[in-house]
Amino acid sequence: MDYRIEKDTMGEVQVPAQVYWGAQTQRSIENFKIAQDINKMPKPIIQAFAYLKKAAALANFELNVLPVEKKDAIAKVCDEILEGKLDDQFPLVVWQTGSGTQSNMNVNEVVAYRAHVLNGGQLTDKDKFVHPNDDVNKSQSSNDTFPTAMHIAAYKMLVETTIPGIEKLRDTLAEKSKKFMHVVKIGRTHFMDATPLTLGQEFSGYVAQLTHGLKAIKNSLAHLSELALGGTAVGTGINTPAGYSELVAKKIAELTGLPFITAENKFEALAAHDAIVEAHGALKTVAVSLMKIGNDVRMLSSGPRSGIGEIHIPDNEPGSSIMPGKVNPTQCEALTMIAAQVLGNDVAINIGGATGHFELNVFKPVMIFNFLHSARLIGEGCISFNDKCAEGIEPIEANIKKHVDNSLMLVTALNTKIGYYKAAEIAQKAHKEGTTLKEMALKLGYLTSEEFDAWVDPIKMVGELK
Amino acid sequence: MDYRIEKDTMGEVQVPAQVYWGAQTQRSIENFKIAQDINKMPKPIIQAFAYLKKAAALANFELNVLPVEKKDAIAKVCDEILEGKLDDQFPLVVWQTGSGTQSNMNVNEVVAYRAHVLNGGQLTDKDKFVHPNDDVNKSQSSNDTFPTAMHIAAYKMLVETTIPGIEKLRDTLAEKSKKFMHVVKIGRTHFMDATPLTLGQEFSGYVAQLTHGLKAIKNSLAHLSELALGGTAVGTGINTPAGYSELVAKKIAELTGLPFITAENKFEALAAHDAIVEAHGALKTVAVSLMKIGNDVRMLSSGPRSGIGEIHIPDNEPGSSIMPGKVNPTQCEALTMIAAQVLGNDVAINIGGATGHFELNVFKPVMIFNFLHSARLIGEGCISFNDKCAEGIEPIEANIKKHVDNSLMLVTALNTKIGYYKAAEIAQKAHKEGTTLKEMALKLGYLTSEEFDAWVDPIKMVGELK
Amino acid sequence: MDYRIEKDTMGEVQVPAQVYWGAQTQRSIENFKIAQDINKMPKPIIQAFAYLKKAAALANFELNVLPVEKKDAIAKVCDEILEGKLDDQFPLVVWQTGSGTQSNMNVNEVVAYRAHVLNGGQLTDKDKFVHPNDDVNKSQSSNDTFPTAMHIAAYKMLVETTIPGIEKLRDTLAEKSKKFMHVVKIGRTHFMDATPLTLGQEFSGYVAQLTHGLKAIKNSLAHLSELALGGTAVGTGINTPAGYSELVAKKIAELTGLPFITAENKFEALAAHDAIVEAHGALKTVAVSLMKIGNDVRMLSSGPRSGIGEIHIPDNEPGSSIMPGKVNPTQCEALTMIAAQVLGNDVAINIGGATGHFELNVFKPVMIFNFLHSARLIGEGCISFNDKCAEGIEPIEANIKKHVDNSLMLVTALNTKIGYYKAAEIAQKAHKEGTTLKEMALKLGYLTSEEFDAWVDPIKMVGELK
Amino acid sequence: MDYRIEKDTMGEVQVPAQVYWGAQTQRSIENFKIAQDINKMPKPIIQAFAYLKKAAALANFELNVLPVEKKDAIAKVCDEILEGKLDDQFPLVVWQTGSGTQSNMNVNEVVAYRAHVLNGGQLTDKDKFVHPNDDVNKSQSSNDTFPTAMHIAAYKMLVETTIPGIEKLRDTLAEKSKKFMHVVKIGRTHFMDATPLTLGQEFSGYVAQLTHGLKAIKNSLAHLSELALGGTAVGTGINTPAGYSELVAKKIAELTGLPFITAENKFEALAAHDAIVEAHGALKTVAVSLMKIGNDVRMLSSGPRSGIGEIHIPDNEPGSSIMPGKVNPTQCEALTMIAAQVLGNDVAINIGGATGHFELNVFKPVMIFNFLHSARLIGEGCISFNDKCAEGIEPIEANIKKHVDNSLMLVTALNTKIGYYKAAEIAQKAHKEGTTLKEMALKLGYLTSEEFDAWVDPIKMVGELK
Repeated sequence: MDYRIEKDTMGEVQVPAQVYWGAQTQRSIENFKIAQDINKMPKPIIQAFAYLKKAAALANFELNVLPVEKKDAIAKVCDEILEGKLDDQFPLVVWQTGSGTQSNMNVNEVVAYRAHVLNGGQLTDKDKFVHPNDDVNKSQSSNDTFPTAMHIAAYKMLVETTIPGIEKLRDTLAEKSKKFMHVVKIGRTHFMDATPLTLGQEFSGYVAQLTHGLKAIKNSLAHLSELALGGTAVGTGINTPAGYSELVAKKIAELTGLPFITAENKFEALAAHDAIVEAHGALKTVAVSLMKIGNDVRMLSSGPRSGIGEIHIPDNEPGSSIMPGKVNPTQCEALTMIAAQVLGNDVAINIGGATGHFELNVFKPVMIFNFLHSARLIGEGCISFNDKCAEGIEPIEANIKKHVDNSLMLVTALNTKIGYYKAAEIAQKAHKEGTTLKEMALKLGYLTSEEFDAWVDPIKMVGELK
Repeated sequence: MDYRIEKDTMGEVQVPAQVYWGAQTQRSIENFKIAQDINKMPKPIIQAFAYLKKAAALANFELNVLPVEKKDAIAKVCDEILEGKLDDQFPLVVWQTGSGTQSNMNVNEVVAYRAHVLNGGQLTDKDKFVHPNDDVNKSQSSNDTFPTAMHIAAYKMLVETTIPGIEKLRDTLAEKSKKFMHVVKIGRTHFMDATPLTLGQEFSGYVAQLTHGLKAIKNSLAHLSELALGGTAVGTGINTPAGYSELVAKKIAELTGLPFITAENKFEALAAHDAIVEAHGALKTVAVSLMKIGNDVRMLSSGPRSGIGEIHIPDNEPGSSIMPGKVNPTQCEALTMIAAQVLGNDVAINIGGATGHFELNVFKPVMIFNFLHSARLIGEGCISFNDKCAEGIEPIEANIKKHVDNSLMLVTALNTKIGYYKAAEIAQKAHKEGTTLKEMALKLGYLTSEEFDAWVDPIKMVGELK
Repeated sequence: MDYRIEKDTMGEVQVPAQVYWGAQTQRSIENFKIAQDINKMPKPIIQAFAYLKKAAALANFELNVLPVEKKDAIAKVCDEILEGKLDDQFPLVVWQTGSGTQSNMNVNEVVAYRAHVLNGGQLTDKDKFVHPNDDVNKSQSSNDTFPTAMHIAAYKMLVETTIPGIEKLRDTLAEKSKKFMHVVKIGRTHFMDATPLTLGQEFSGYVAQLTHGLKAIKNSLAHLSELALGGTAVGTGINTPAGYSELVAKKIAELTGLPFITAENKFEALAAHDAIVEAHGALKTVAVSLMKIGNDVRMLSSGPRSGIGEIHIPDNEPGSSIMPGKVNPTQCEALTMIAAQVLGNDVAINIGGATGHFELNVFKPVMIFNFLHSARLIGEGCISFNDKCAEGIEPIEANIKKHVDNSLMLVTALNTKIGYYKAAEIAQKAHKEGTTLKEMALKLGYLTSEEFDAWVDPIKMVGELK
Repeated sequence: MDYRIEKDTMGEVQVPAQVYWGAQTQRSIENFKIAQDINKMPKPIIQAFAYLKKAAALANFELNVLPVEKKDAIAKVCDEILEGKLDDQFPLVVWQTGSGTQSNMNVNEVVAYRAHVLNGGQLTDKDKFVHPNDDVNKSQSSNDTFPTAMHIAAYKMLVETTIPGIEKLRDTLAEKSKKFMHVVKIGRTHFMDATPLTLGQEFSGYVAQLTHGLKAIKNSLAHLSELALGGTAVGTGINTPAGYSELVAKKIAELTGLPFITAENKFEALAAHDAIVEAHGALKTVAVSLMKIGNDVRMLSSGPRSGIGEIHIPDNEPGSSIMPGKVNPTQCEALTMIAAQVLGNDVAINIGGATGHFELNVFKPVMIFNFLHSARLIGEGCISFNDKCAEGIEPIEANIKKHVDNSLMLVTALNTKIGYYKAAEIAQKAHKEGTTLKEMALKLGYLTSEEFDAWVDPIKMVGELK
């Protein structure tokens, strides 16, 4: 391979001749040979940096610390990054310095050198038109850019992928709930037969879970909307022009179309990432909900002949390489695996968040890596589960009816008529003798056939249907 | 020991003669011999049940399904429970049925039998004036009472213990931040010397963390304010009079003075405890903050001679059984141990929350056990840390000054004057030769003595002080 | 209350007149008002300290640094502690100094002052016959005693409670497995009907899980058998006589009857508690197994009429306060709640273990608190589940037979006869038309009635039965 | 793009014309659009499948159920996979069916169709020389192949990457320990100055941690060496020839050179993945050790002027984009981020392991995804930390000496001479007055200058040096 020589404050480094990155990126590649093929710095972070660098250039220009040509050149490269044209220029991994400095420098170098080339220069020119530190990184530090990129990427992922995914699934379940509202079925508590409800009521619980989860996510957006940018090295804002923090946040808000503001306290914004911890707390709540929903759907659709079998879900693929004709609840499985992953990611984020020291948390990459992973998995997992499973759910009415008809727990309706103890006696004896409630009730003489029919009516036991 | 015979629907049980509990409580004692001395059902849950049973009696009376004498009798015993007079009547442990049915029945039995005794009856009377199921539990099921008690207990603990504890610590730290606002000190990023900030700025980050944490907790209260009561067995509200759900929530709100409302969706309220998961997500966020704060204080106060040594914390006790005169940051240690516990509890709660099936989550006791543990530990831990440590924090100005004076990172102020690369050269060479920045800057000829003094001034590097 | 005045190196402290503890214990009570009623230092730790203090006195005497009278006096009080006679003298909580110094001093004080009283002295005497630091704590530091007590307590709990509990359950399940070895039932994969196996085979999987889990626990005992004692303050063994480490470990081994040895590396033994982390890794593995087993039993016994219903478990108590006659799998619920708790405790232990610094880990109390909690819950939980559930499990043969007879997955037996694709066609069409495999197989003409009967025989599909 | 039509038991599917995969792989791509660019099924799993399929072909041939030509053809394609020639033929993601059926079928299809092409056939031929189900998957099910691939991949990663990585770091630290064995330094307990030890002793603790961790990993290999293969659909071994289980395990052992055996209990091997949970319990223990080591190195090297500053670590890259000349402990940061990740992965694995039902755990992909991630991160992380940090660690003797000389905790040496209380008085007063221990000791008249010099000698306080 051809190389060129790049320099940083520590000396010379050989860099592949054609890449736009420079010495510091190259050092990181060589210093961190850890999972390089599978744990690249997430692309949404690179994209967030592009917004950030452009916004910083705009703000620096407006505040008279960056000339117009450099501003334009930087902005142009940032746009190229956002268009995905430079995707192969960001080779670094998550397992680097905990401040993300090397990814910040990767972006600085690529923007500077690409700008130089766009300006007619050569990668081998000793002096470049735009300098990675003095221009692209002007009024910035890794310590405030990386957390800013974290918030931009996290916020965008939540509003563009996570929330729409959950909402789509929630809406489908709401529609199913409405459609199934009059399908009376046996309830199950402790996995045991209980009093009846309707399938629509059962599904309404899932809808309520997701609605609450969405609210929890949205509650966490306010903290995420606060940007560290302007804090620079330790939060004091050293080397920034007056008014910069507010202006650059405004620029980022304009470029992204999202309501970002400058963080009220920059020391917190560098030294802690509680906003990430807090927002992932909402994601783990949703993961808990999805585990419940996925399990319920899996179990309700179990069978086809020896399970619960009360709903049918779409047959998407052959289920077994050995058992012919088998179909499995594979979307439930993907969804619940995602839930397990998110609950694990939560712990990684907690530990990262808890282990910052003094002015800087240095678990930034691992925190955002896990956050973006969870946010995307939930969003795309909900869409997949929705499109390939939830939308196709249908009740299996014959099984549902059979279960209701057989149930002993309809006896509960008698509590207010003959008392808990006599009702219990009816149920226990019917169970022991394998007979129906009605037969036993009459045999014990606690009520008449007419009373039984009037009082023990599943449809009356499910309450008002909304 | 003397016994009497009690009966339930399964038959006779020997119960200690003098206790107010009955057959089902006794069965639970015998069936669950697990950690009986250390894992009692938390007292706040028993207290919450007292509010609930009283409220249910009031509502049942108002809706004409319970006579006035029974209502009064039930209410009276509930007041005794709230006064702590019957604390020894609740012997059950967390490790029982996952619906908490046995603790619900424990309360039902104690209320009924104590009411019967207050009414002049004997514990050995076959028929009691008030019946555990038909009266005390009227219009209720374990499935809706236990989650209601969970929300009452959790909400109360948060607003009475957790939030005030955090607020007290936050306020002390805010006061310290103000007081230390002009104490210029070295910043530390990556645990390495960085540009200066003030001790007050450093503490302002802690204040911001706790303020955000408090907001996160408060955001979670809305979901916790929703009560399951009225859903009874599976969420349909079977065996409740019309208007009961709203009325009983109103009664609970009046009795507790807290803004409880009836849950919009009772199916969710029984089958899932996402409100607990979500609210504990806020608690774990605070735990993360406390770990950071506790670690920083521990490290800042380290020494006395070979550590960081920038703050002094109170000497509360001899620190070592072997090293004479040693004093340790013991409050930091208790606080960070609490943080570790809360982060563990979070996982137990997540797993419990995720493993519900169909109409009922049966991890209720373990979920609320961990929740109340965390909420109390954080509240009381913050008070302890505040009273015995934070309030006594003082800067050690001599050490602080020494660290600032020695620092090489003041060189950062030169970036905008002579560029990043020359500034780096000064710092690196000063470090290598063990000299000061100024000496090296002059030696390299990059600026004059006057320029150095004018540009490299720590107090100018900390930004605006609010 | 009456008080007396006690002194330590920091000055005077008021102590309740009649207690045996002294100034440092009292300071801890006052400095750590955190969960004092629910989070006492676990009793097994106090007991472990009694072994340790006695062993240290014996070793110190043998090495000529402690006179015989003091040795005897210390040993006598330690015996009293082991007999439980002084249980009320250990009031401290987990949330204290992270080295457990205060609990070590609590023991030192109680032993010293009780020894003084047994020797005829008064608690108010200024000089005591035995000194807490100079005698009881001789050749020790909190830094090596507390981790030693951790290992003693953990090892004892594992071999006395955890392992026997798991073994008892494992043996019962093995017996059931043998008994049910010829009960052919439907298999379920993906919660869907699959090829048959026997109930005994299914249970043999649980047996294998627990057998492997026991092996994992036993593998972890070697590291736990290493004792820190002799390392004193930082691991160097300062202030210990030659030969002390080995001798005191031998004494502890003799007193406890367990194979304790001195740790090869004392620096690790103070600074890290990886032995606790590792051993709890085995406990969490068992928790994972118990969650599986508890869930399976819960689901297999579900019904009675609308569930899986293939086994019957004992009816231990009425299951519902509202649904008469309902019986629930309550032992499964307690067991799976325990599993959730252990998985949470694991995280608390990991974080504690990971957050030690330099020569001392100061998350000792929280680590051992969670460890002992898990070890006891698993042990007692297994006994409870065994005695009240597993021992009473019986197959419900009618349901089992019905499920096998209906199954479509028996078709798998035809793969090797007619190929996977034709077999799949039979199963899919039988499912669609609601008919049996045989009917469809004949209809499609893929085999004769005789062939079908010869090839599709559930009992031939379960393999060799061991 | 060009397509061809493929069929499975559910019907026709369009597949890109040139790929070797078939209908079922294609269905999975379309059904699971979840993180397709970042969460591919790990390559080590594909490689493990290649060993497995080859071994199965060999065993099937030897047992006379597969003709020699098919055996050879299958083996040849498996070799190509192992050589990495078909890497682009495995497009599926982790988030698929929880049994990994689709990845098993992906391998079956690629092997079959590639074999057909090697045999001179066309991808568009309706009948292929080798059939995915009937030949490549012969005597197998996804349910036993995927867990077998999990164990092969996990075992290989542990012995090829994880263990060597840890050993390399352990050996370097051992060498450093030896080299630094006589460098006397201040100890630190509770992050506070304590009695001295040597830097070599301090490092010996790290060595002991890793040595114990290695032992824990090796203990877990036995369970991982058990292979599920031969259990087929539910563990009974349906559709396998006699002797197959043992033979195929032997073949896998031969092909991999690793001591694999057939699992004693196949029901456990399909329904639970406790071996993965257990082995990851060892990995999380190592993560805990690495967090401690990484933190210690970070803190010991802190400064350069205002930190602990007792060791120097290599300067690998410029540390700051804003602070010129700054160098950071970046390898410590990567290592501790890895530790956080592994501790999170542990929880995902626990939840996956705990949530299996009946005859099959369907969290297989998420479990092995996290396992391989951890195992690789630890292995490569240790190498990186070793090569770029540990090997270059050197003591900064001037700082080390200064800290020892200043220390007040040398007073501990006086305990056995003048008692704990008088020693404490010396230390406390010296601290208060800012003087040395010796000055204060003489001033208080507790010992002579000669006694002080004889007794308080740091080198005598560090014990025997091994």
